[in-house]
Amino acid sequence: MDANIDFLPDGTVTSPAGFSAGATYSGMKSYTEDKRDLGILLSETPCVTAGVFTTNLIKSPSVIVSQQLMQGGKVRAVVVNSGVANTSVGEQGFTDAQETMLLAAEHTGIGPEEICMCSTGLIGGELPMALIRSGLPNIGLSPEGGDEFARAILTTDRRPKSAAVRLQIEGNTVTIGGCIKGSGMIHPNMATMLAFITTDAAVEKDYLSALFKEVASETFNMTSIDGDESTNDTALMFASGRSGNRPLLATSPEALRFRTALMELCVFLSKEMLRDAEGASKIFAAQIEGAKTKEDARKIARAVASSMLVKSAVHGNDPNWGRIIAAAGRGGGYLEESKVSLYINGVTIMEKGQPIPFHRESVIVLMQNPEVLFTLQLHLGDATATAWGCELTEEYVTFNSAYTT
Amino acid sequence: MDANIDFLPDGTVTSPAGFSAGATYSGMKSYTEDKRDLGILLSETPCVTAGVFTTNLIKSPSVIVSQQLMQGGKVRAVVVNSGVANTSVGEQGFTDAQETMLLAAEHTGIGPEEICMCSTGLIGGELPMALIRSGLPNIGLSPEGGDEFARAILTTDRRPKSAAVRLQIEGNTVTIGGCIKGSGMIHPNMATMLAFITTDAAVEKDYLSALFKEVASETFNMTSIDGDESTNDTALMFASGRSGNRPLLATSPEALRFRTALMELCVFLSKEMLRDAEGASKIFAAQIEGAKTKEDARKIARAVASSMLVKSAVHGNDPNWGRIIAAAGRGGGYLEESKVSLYINGVTIMEKGQPIPFHRESVIVLMQNPEVLFTLQLHLGDATATAWGCELTEEYVTFNSAYTT
Repeated sequence: MDANIDFLPDGTVTSPAGFSAGATYSGMKSYTEDKRDLGILLSETPCVTAGVFTTNLIKSPSVIVSQQLMQGGKVRAVVVNSGVANTSVGEQGFTDAQETMLLAAEHTGIGPEEICMCSTGLIGGELPMALIRSGLPNIGLSPEGGDEFARAILTTDRRPKSAAVRLQIEGNTVTIGGCIKGSGMIHPNMATMLAFITTDAAVEKDYLSALFKEVASETFNMTSIDGDESTNDTALMFASGRSGNRPLLATSPEALRFRTALMELCVFLSKEMLRDAEGASKIFAAQIEGAKTKEDARKIARAVASSMLVKSAVHGNDPNWGRIIAAAGRGGGYLEESKVSLYINGVTIMEKGQPIPFHRESVIVLMQNPEVLFTLQLHLGDATATAWGCELTEEYVTFNSAYTT
Repeated sequence: MDANIDFLPDGTVTSPAGFSAGATYSGMKSYTEDKRDLGILLSETPCVTAGVFTTNLIKSPSVIVSQQLMQGGKVRAVVVNSGVANTSVGEQGFTDAQETMLLAAEHTGIGPEEICMCSTGLIGGELPMALIRSGLPNIGLSPEGGDEFARAILTTDRRPKSAAVRLQIEGNTVTIGGCIKGSGMIHPNMATMLAFITTDAAVEKDYLSALFKEVASETFNMTSIDGDESTNDTALMFASGRSGNRPLLATSPEALRFRTALMELCVFLSKEMLRDAEGASKIFAAQIEGAKTKEDARKIARAVASSMLVKSAVHGNDPNWGRIIAAAGRGGGYLEESKVSLYINGVTIMEKGQPIPFHRESVIVLMQNPEVLFTLQLHLGDATATAWGCELTEEYVTFNSAYTT
């Protein structure tokens, strides 16, 4: 990590100046004391926003209305619910999303054009509006509410996942905070990957949009493998501008450092999401080097990270490297077998197409690390990409074969 | 099934006239009495052939040399080995494939341009040529050797999978036989789907190539989901012409019936492969109707059939239909949610985008069938496609996390 960027493991979406948040338990999920299922995140003043949404042709009305609202450029708050996806319920889904957003706007004292909505949970059931109507007024917003908000987006996740990073820009302290939810094997189960990023930096709108899109495609989209997008996937970023810097542009001298800090936060959150996937605890990176094009590198990285056989091998600490090579070859990115070198946590397994005898026990031990690294050097160019995956466990199957019943 | 096509459950690749086959155990797999790992299939006379090969960029030398040989047009035999994929072993893989084919050609008394080779098994180890040299002469070829041959291609498969169909063409009895191997969840594990189809029909060469390619893309390629092709996938078809019919052309009046018979055999073999997948016994079909284009239908069908969440739900008899809808929406084929209807084994779950209250217990009972049918009617056009998948079980993970260790 950049020495001039501080990592704040206890940071949240309310670590940056100008944000408050809160959550409540309304009854959309089975009760435990620390469970929340309805939350609000608010920028106290107008802010600049960016969003990345699922490309699934089946979309939750919560996604569709939020996408439209974001285009208006006035959004500075989001209401979230978990337990019910508000997806595949016909027109009622739009009516319910509108009412929920209106209730949240009234509760926070902002205009209806200033708030959007994210839902996550089971597909095919209508939002329980009675619970939302009675629960929403209980949400207390505060600058300490980031952890509460992070809990309100969880479904089968085992724990809230938040963090923040801090850096200096033009002598001003800038903080970027975020939270995430995943689940499934990030072949999302309860239908969603949600990520919320906040910052008190001032960022010019077009630059924020381009930057957030780029960072999301290198992080969230390299864990949400396989184009396996859910009906509700959404990542939103809010920039309050409260830190006092001049608005960052692509040409700003400080833009690169801001990008690095944002990237580090989003990589961390993506890995956190994988570590918290159903049944999983071990994660791995598929790092592609020397590809002809970026797109080649991305395709190969994603193919390796999403291979069920690779995921199973990681679970069993099994240096079955043929599975990595086979997944790479079918990924749709260009490679030439006779030029490919493969390393597992730095140990050479294959050198330019030729398998190298390796000490099996050592590699098994290396694969017991909580994070395993597969590096493929293609020797064809300069392009690189990394995708992340998690182990596939028996618990995943048990959990997912008995989920609604 | 067409009433004029007889299904022969005990049929094999040697059921059609003019074929003999045999196999032996050479030591490439752990021994059990009925295990074979080296086999030969031979057309006694010159024949017409067609082949479909993996598009994985990492290919076994066995695949590369066979593809070249097939272009010569003289191939009438294939030597197969199981246990070792002969993949990712550098130049040695070509040397060993050539030697194996030469040994098999000498053993069967045919020319070296008349035989190709298929390998399946673990990637990254060289063929044990000492075992092949000593084992191959033990292969006894006979017209009853079809079952032996079907055993010689197995890896983690639990049983050999063969069948045949029979029909009349111009008063001649025509038989089509076949065998298949899969394993994994047909996200192939020991690196291969292999299928061998034989017929005593006379078929014109260009028509056979086009027909076999089409049938393979509707059957084998709709089970070998996700473009998840292995390094060794191969499907070969041999037509001996011994039944005495005039060579079939695309314009022949009998071509459609021959196509139907071949399709039925290949659908059967594909389903057999799924039923025999690691840890699985239940299979399901994702049947897409009313799509705008065939390609749309194929993409959506494959997305549903390859969804881990759908596979897990099938395992648990869980009518979690939101997973089907979500998979369909991200498949890359065009659909409009407000027009989609969904049926599980004929029971209406969703009608033009609107969920229909269904009797949950009934659907759970229906999902206990050994074959579950998900039908998506898109109401956009006339195109259809069907893909097949199998359940995802805990056993799959256990097996694949401890495969080489």
